[in-house]
Amino acid sequence: MDWKEKIISDVKKTKEASLLLSKVSTEDKNLFLNKLIEKIEKNRERIIKENEKDVEECLRRDYSNAFIDRLKIDNKRIDKMIKSIKDVIVLPDPVGKKIWEIERPNGLKIEKIRVPIGVIGIIYESRPDVTIEASILCIKSGNSVILRGGKESKRTNLILVDIMKSALKDAHLPVDSVNIITTGGRRAVRYILKLYQYIDLIIPRGGESLIKAVVENSYIPVIKHYAGVCHTYVDKYANLEMAWTVVLNAKVQRPATCNAIETLLVHKDIASEFLPKMAELFKKYGVEMRGCRETRKIINDIKEATEDDWYTEYLDLIISIKIVNSVEEAIEHINKYGTHHSDAIITENKENADKFLKEVDSAAVYHNASTRFTDGGEFGLGGEIGISTDKIHARGPMGLEELTSYKYIIHGNGQIRE
Amino acid sequence: MDWKEKIISDVKKTKEASLLLSKVSTEDKNLFLNKLIEKIEKNRERIIKENEKDVEECLRRDYSNAFIDRLKIDNKRIDKMIKSIKDVIVLPDPVGKKIWEIERPNGLKIEKIRVPIGVIGIIYESRPDVTIEASILCIKSGNSVILRGGKESKRTNLILVDIMKSALKDAHLPVDSVNIITTGGRRAVRYILKLYQYIDLIIPRGGESLIKAVVENSYIPVIKHYAGVCHTYVDKYANLEMAWTVVLNAKVQRPATCNAIETLLVHKDIASEFLPKMAELFKKYGVEMRGCRETRKIINDIKEATEDDWYTEYLDLIISIKIVNSVEEAIEHINKYGTHHSDAIITENKENADKFLKEVDSAAVYHNASTRFTDGGEFGLGGEIGISTDKIHARGPMGLEELTSYKYIIHGNGQIRE
Repeated sequence: MDWKEKIISDVKKTKEASLLLSKVSTEDKNLFLNKLIEKIEKNRERIIKENEKDVEECLRRDYSNAFIDRLKIDNKRIDKMIKSIKDVIVLPDPVGKKIWEIERPNGLKIEKIRVPIGVIGIIYESRPDVTIEASILCIKSGNSVILRGGKESKRTNLILVDIMKSALKDAHLPVDSVNIITTGGRRAVRYILKLYQYIDLIIPRGGESLIKAVVENSYIPVIKHYAGVCHTYVDKYANLEMAWTVVLNAKVQRPATCNAIETLLVHKDIASEFLPKMAELFKKYGVEMRGCRETRKIINDIKEATEDDWYTEYLDLIISIKIVNSVEEAIEHINKYGTHHSDAIITENKENADKFLKEVDSAAVYHNASTRFTDGGEFGLGGEIGISTDKIHARGPMGLEELTSYKYIIHGNGQIRE
Repeated sequence: MDWKEKIISDVKKTKEASLLLSKVSTEDKNLFLNKLIEKIEKNRERIIKENEKDVEECLRRDYSNAFIDRLKIDNKRIDKMIKSIKDVIVLPDPVGKKIWEIERPNGLKIEKIRVPIGVIGIIYESRPDVTIEASILCIKSGNSVILRGGKESKRTNLILVDIMKSALKDAHLPVDSVNIITTGGRRAVRYILKLYQYIDLIIPRGGESLIKAVVENSYIPVIKHYAGVCHTYVDKYANLEMAWTVVLNAKVQRPATCNAIETLLVHKDIASEFLPKMAELFKKYGVEMRGCRETRKIINDIKEATEDDWYTEYLDLIISIKIVNSVEEAIEHINKYGTHHSDAIITENKENADKFLKEVDSAAVYHNASTRFTDGGEFGLGGEIGISTDKIHARGPMGLEELTSYKYIIHGNGQIRE
């Protein structure tokens, strides 16, 4: 069997499993999740040992520390995996939920019911925590999974999939509910992305270049979780005390997350009052500032922000600052340079707030709060597979409901169309 | 300006218009629709005259009658266009509708609100009725439209777009809410499909080869309205009187539609009682039958159905017939050969009905009714831009709600994340 035949065979089996999995009860899916916790607990040493082999090879090949940090599985990471499985067990199962119903004048009873999507392909980098976290969300929502992780995490992924299959078996669910493709190199990814007869949705998890490559090669629908170039706009009518606290939180509380802000926009009329203390706070927390010309008249000792800065997701303790003439200019800047992720206005003026919330074209728009709240858990939606920056199917936190489709079920008593 | 610059310029203007259009009130959108009716009424002659030039050119080039029939606009077709605009005026506007809300323990108030998608690209064949019908659904749901119709309908499309722009202007809506691209040949379509910075969704309208070409070339999300290979399964426990009526309706009432059936599946235990009268009815209505080996033992004088037949959407008075051993075999056949569109079971047995409705993986599944009801109007959803055979974003009839996305609006009073 060459690599193409192997992929087709795996993908077909996964499709067949999805038809069975779509019928499985919530109890049986939770049984699988409980078995999975047991088995991960029992296999901690084996997992860490296989992971060490992956890590050693990357060390030999001089991969960056950041890369190795994402690859490495220690007992703390395993604790986190187990925690994420427990979180998914308590989430309500969306499958079978009635979304809408109607009885028509001709007596037809129509129901719209949530159903699994089918087979979901996850294309990701060498982050083995994704192997577990993505798979359990897919399976809890009745979907089977085709995984394609970074080659550097191959050994770790294989043992994790092995453990999942063993938990599936113990719970009497189809073992092909999860499969991983490790053969074929980059051309394998391109090949997988053409198999729309068997795979219903692709979710790439990783940096912009990975997502772009997936979008440009896929015949299968893709939901993108692009970068978060998020903004906070401090309006002329802001409560400045609130603004200092909220802006600082949005930047420094966890700068490497997608919902942290990268750009601060400040209304010109309050800039000279607001910015000096803001700059002091940023300095205290080690934040590098880059400003527009007007900003640099107020905060003297900072670099100039270039056109590129406005487009950049630093994911780090860096912020770009721009002074604007109006709420309209702030909105225009955000819609032009942002990634339609999360943006906030700080103001006591209802009209400006409403304008901002309506016209900023982003998944989450905030009035007087930190953008850091864009998260399935914080929204009360439970775990998420990512934050969609798309507008099709899922926008913002993508949880179990967003991992489903629906079907119309129609009951009649012999109705025909005239 | 070369053709690429022209396309970019048009698409950018359409994107800018979409930001304005997203804020427009329902009244103003309906004003546009009313103005459009007036203007179409006033320009009947001009439309028909331009269309005649398109038709004449196709006649000279020996296009098929069916092709010319779809291209041709007469007064009756214009009446139908006006009727479709009137239907859209009375549809409720989904934009701004609250889908969900929650107040979090930290006091954040989160609302999930329907918003337009943005710019929708319609790629279609030489059917000028689509020019109007697709555009008005997009605009009523707050989206601007990029049209790319078949080259044979260029003159007709240009005048229709001209009339829409004039109605937009009269209603004080941005005239770039609709634009049509007529330059650049086939490579223009491929070029449009890469412009994901400006276009948010592509809906191809046409045959399988057009849809396939769009899917294989697009970097933009695509929602497909593929063929309908629909089935009716007559179960062992069917009320045969009902089965004869419903099956006949599903096949002959309008055979050229996607929700008409192409294949009849019959349980072996009732085949010899059911099929002879069914065959009589089919003959009476001029339906050509093609059967499996077992079917041909009961209906002697018909052709054998080949493997290809099970996959074929005839869109014509032809039906393939297969005898199956069980409801399970019927489900398996449908999931394998069908297009996941509309499928029905005729039975008085609740268990078999439930099994069928749950396990057939189609957008609409029927118990004791004709598949011909899969239609936005018949479902009480209003007009539709098509029947989606996808599972992502929209499945089944795709109306105004399915032409929207959503955003989360969050109101706080200074909340920060700890």
